[in-house]
Amino acid sequence: MDGQTTIEEQYDYLLAVLQADQLIEFRELFFNLHIYEQGQFYLSLNEEERQRVYTYLSPKEMADMFDVIEEDEEDVEEYLKEMKPSYVADMLAEMYTDNAVDTLNQLDKTTMAKYLSLMDTESASEIKELLHYEDETAGSIMTTEYVSIVANQTVRSAMYLLKNEATVAETIYYVFVVDRENILVGVISLRDLIVNDDDRMISDIMSERVMSVKVGDDQEDVAKMIRDYDFLAVPVTDYEGHLLGIVTVDDIIDVIDEEAASDYSGLAGVDVEESSENPFKAASKRLPWLITLLFLGMSTATLIGRYEELVSEASILAVFISLITGTAGNAGTQSLAVAVRRLAVQDDKDSGFFRLIISEVLTGLITGAVTGLAIFIVVGIWKQNFPLGFVIGIAMLFAITVANLAGSLIPMLMDKLGFDPAVASGPFITTLSDLTSVLIYFNIASLFMSYFI
Amino acid sequence: MDGQTTIEEQYDYLLAVLQADQLIEFRELFFNLHIYEQGQFYLSLNEEERQRVYTYLSPKEMADMFDVIEEDEEDVEEYLKEMKPSYVADMLAEMYTDNAVDTLNQLDKTTMAKYLSLMDTESASEIKELLHYEDETAGSIMTTEYVSIVANQTVRSAMYLLKNEATVAETIYYVFVVDRENILVGVISLRDLIVNDDDRMISDIMSERVMSVKVGDDQEDVAKMIRDYDFLAVPVTDYEGHLLGIVTVDDIIDVIDEEAASDYSGLAGVDVEESSENPFKAASKRLPWLITLLFLGMSTATLIGRYEELVSEASILAVFISLITGTAGNAGTQSLAVAVRRLAVQDDKDSGFFRLIISEVLTGLITGAVTGLAIFIVVGIWKQNFPLGFVIGIAMLFAITVANLAGSLIPMLMDKLGFDPAVASGPFITTLSDLTSVLIYFNIASLFMSYFI
Repeated sequence: MDGQTTIEEQYDYLLAVLQADQLIEFRELFFNLHIYEQGQFYLSLNEEERQRVYTYLSPKEMADMFDVIEEDEEDVEEYLKEMKPSYVADMLAEMYTDNAVDTLNQLDKTTMAKYLSLMDTESASEIKELLHYEDETAGSIMTTEYVSIVANQTVRSAMYLLKNEATVAETIYYVFVVDRENILVGVISLRDLIVNDDDRMISDIMSERVMSVKVGDDQEDVAKMIRDYDFLAVPVTDYEGHLLGIVTVDDIIDVIDEEAASDYSGLAGVDVEESSENPFKAASKRLPWLITLLFLGMSTATLIGRYEELVSEASILAVFISLITGTAGNAGTQSLAVAVRRLAVQDDKDSGFFRLIISEVLTGLITGAVTGLAIFIVVGIWKQNFPLGFVIGIAMLFAITVANLAGSLIPMLMDKLGFDPAVASGPFITTLSDLTSVLIYFNIASLFMSYFI
Repeated sequence: MDGQTTIEEQYDYLLAVLQADQLIEFRELFFNLHIYEQGQFYLSLNEEERQRVYTYLSPKEMADMFDVIEEDEEDVEEYLKEMKPSYVADMLAEMYTDNAVDTLNQLDKTTMAKYLSLMDTESASEIKELLHYEDETAGSIMTTEYVSIVANQTVRSAMYLLKNEATVAETIYYVFVVDRENILVGVISLRDLIVNDDDRMISDIMSERVMSVKVGDDQEDVAKMIRDYDFLAVPVTDYEGHLLGIVTVDDIIDVIDEEAASDYSGLAGVDVEESSENPFKAASKRLPWLITLLFLGMSTATLIGRYEELVSEASILAVFISLITGTAGNAGTQSLAVAVRRLAVQDDKDSGFFRLIISEVLTGLITGAVTGLAIFIVVGIWKQNFPLGFVIGIAMLFAITVANLAGSLIPMLMDKLGFDPAVASGPFITTLSDLTSVLIYFNIASLFMSYFI
């Protein structure tokens, strides 16, 4: 970010060097870049330029760079196809296991098997083990490149071991202590190793209260622990306590980002990660939602159709349809967002299901009463028709209360049933609340018909 | 998380010990907990119990715990009031400067000044310096407890220095190298210190390409750097390159969380951090939005009112109002969410303003055409009235296109004008799109009136 030349100028110059086929200068400049920047440079190239890069860089050097290219980069499959299969296999073997697994998971089974068969047996078996874990679990985001030691040794010997592991381990800032059966028994930070005397025994200074997660735990729970406890990594064990791997804070940041984007997408009824600026691609991703909601909306239209006679008698009723459905939809969206967020952050999800629903219905009654009163006064004065204002106000009160109930009940039920509550999208709730609002509105209107006409 | 007793049981037992006034046993059990758990236990107590905790723990011990109590904990002010002012001052002085500043920022000016005057001069002046930085900048989230060294020394002497700083620094995993004027010139990780020989010179092994942020940079940019580069901390400098502090990854996780919650809140038109289950409090926070939108919605109602005669002639038109406004609102929300997300993640915000708007309008035309065609067929068959279907379909096409334009243009304009684009909330866009949709709908309907009646 600092420095005399901007990063874009450096990329441009590096590209010129690449195009001029100057291997030595290219390598010197390239390795002056941070690996993240190396990745960004690589991603900016065309196929011909990338082909040259494959001849310039070793699989190990390529692996370092691929470790930071975002796993959800859509084109990874294409890049791998450009390389020789043996080059890909060597590169995957050199990557951190968790990242190699993420990359492989984007390929079809046959291609995956091909690369694994070309790999050295040890790397292949490490990767195969991680491939088994279900998506979005601790197992699926953990890495096996951690440092573990046994307790009955000194700080000096532990430090010696650490120096040797430092180049391959993903983090050396926590050292995990295991017994002979590889059961996790303690943890010691590099900070503690440094401040303690070289002759102290690890067993004396390690923390035995080591927090860990199970391999099948949800990645969101792992994220919550790292965030709350300010850890840089947490160990992952199987159900008998054997140490299997670690999850590091950089992976957790990606998880938090991913979950936030998915909650946001849910509320908007669109995949916000949609990166394409191609209108056809964008439209094809948005249309399924729009068309589904259109047909749900048709039921509201059908319902209004049943009251067409009422509307032709009192066309003034048509004036307030969108106001009532719109306001109830806004209130329902508020309830939904609060409920989804509450489900995401609270520890004990089973606490007070009914209390929360009742609280949300009461909130609906209060906001509904205030909003209803406001519209009663405004319509009464505007149209010089207080009975009409009364109908609109009462309809508003009930429509908002029902929308609040739906907005909180639906995500909470989905959570109880084991679905992601964030999938209960905003547009779904507003379209649903259109239906209930119209039903409430016309029923109340026909009850008081004689008073306001 | 592991262990024989659950954490809740441990809290219960600890509470019993506290109530029985057993100082020594309390301290032993309390310090067996992780500081995050200490904080959670403290937060679960009532005032009388907390008063006893203040007599049990030193200001330093209290400070360690307060460092992890979330800064946005509403009741912090209340807790400080319960303690003796001198105890508070000592505690704040012992906290990491960034956290002490966060805590002080929740108090009124007079109370803040009182505590600062009771503090030792050095701590007070460190805190005062950070208090100046604007909210949501790198300066406001940085800490001054970092380790810096000069370049012309050996690894051995650097390690010696590190050992002494290890207990007070917020992280020792990066050591920042400065010149005599305290200008940042390099960085070396503890990993590098450990793998290199004790006699190597720091100047030979440090990285001179040190990434840093300016003290006035937006905290979101700092978050982006730490996330992309997988850093554990970044140094913060003034505009002449003097090292002022560091931002650590744990603070960045809070920033990412905060920004996600605020984007989510914007889309729903409600503060989703609203933690209260009190319906009156919740309603009072949601009503301002609802009432504002209600009055915006009134303009839609007024507009429909101008077409009342049209509706009384063709009451069938009323049937499709909510379908058109609803679908256009859904499309507008999709555009909005995509635009806000794109603004949040992209590096170069100025690139292709018009290209993006045009792409979004084209997406609107395509989705509008498909949705319009669908509704043309459905209405044509359902009502045996293809001219009516045509009117609804064409209105849908234009309403969706305009909603897409508004959904992308408004957040992008807000961003250009220096506002947070996420404030352009979903309910605002849908309410606005109600207005334009109704205008389009009735104008098209009155044009083709004679064909479908």
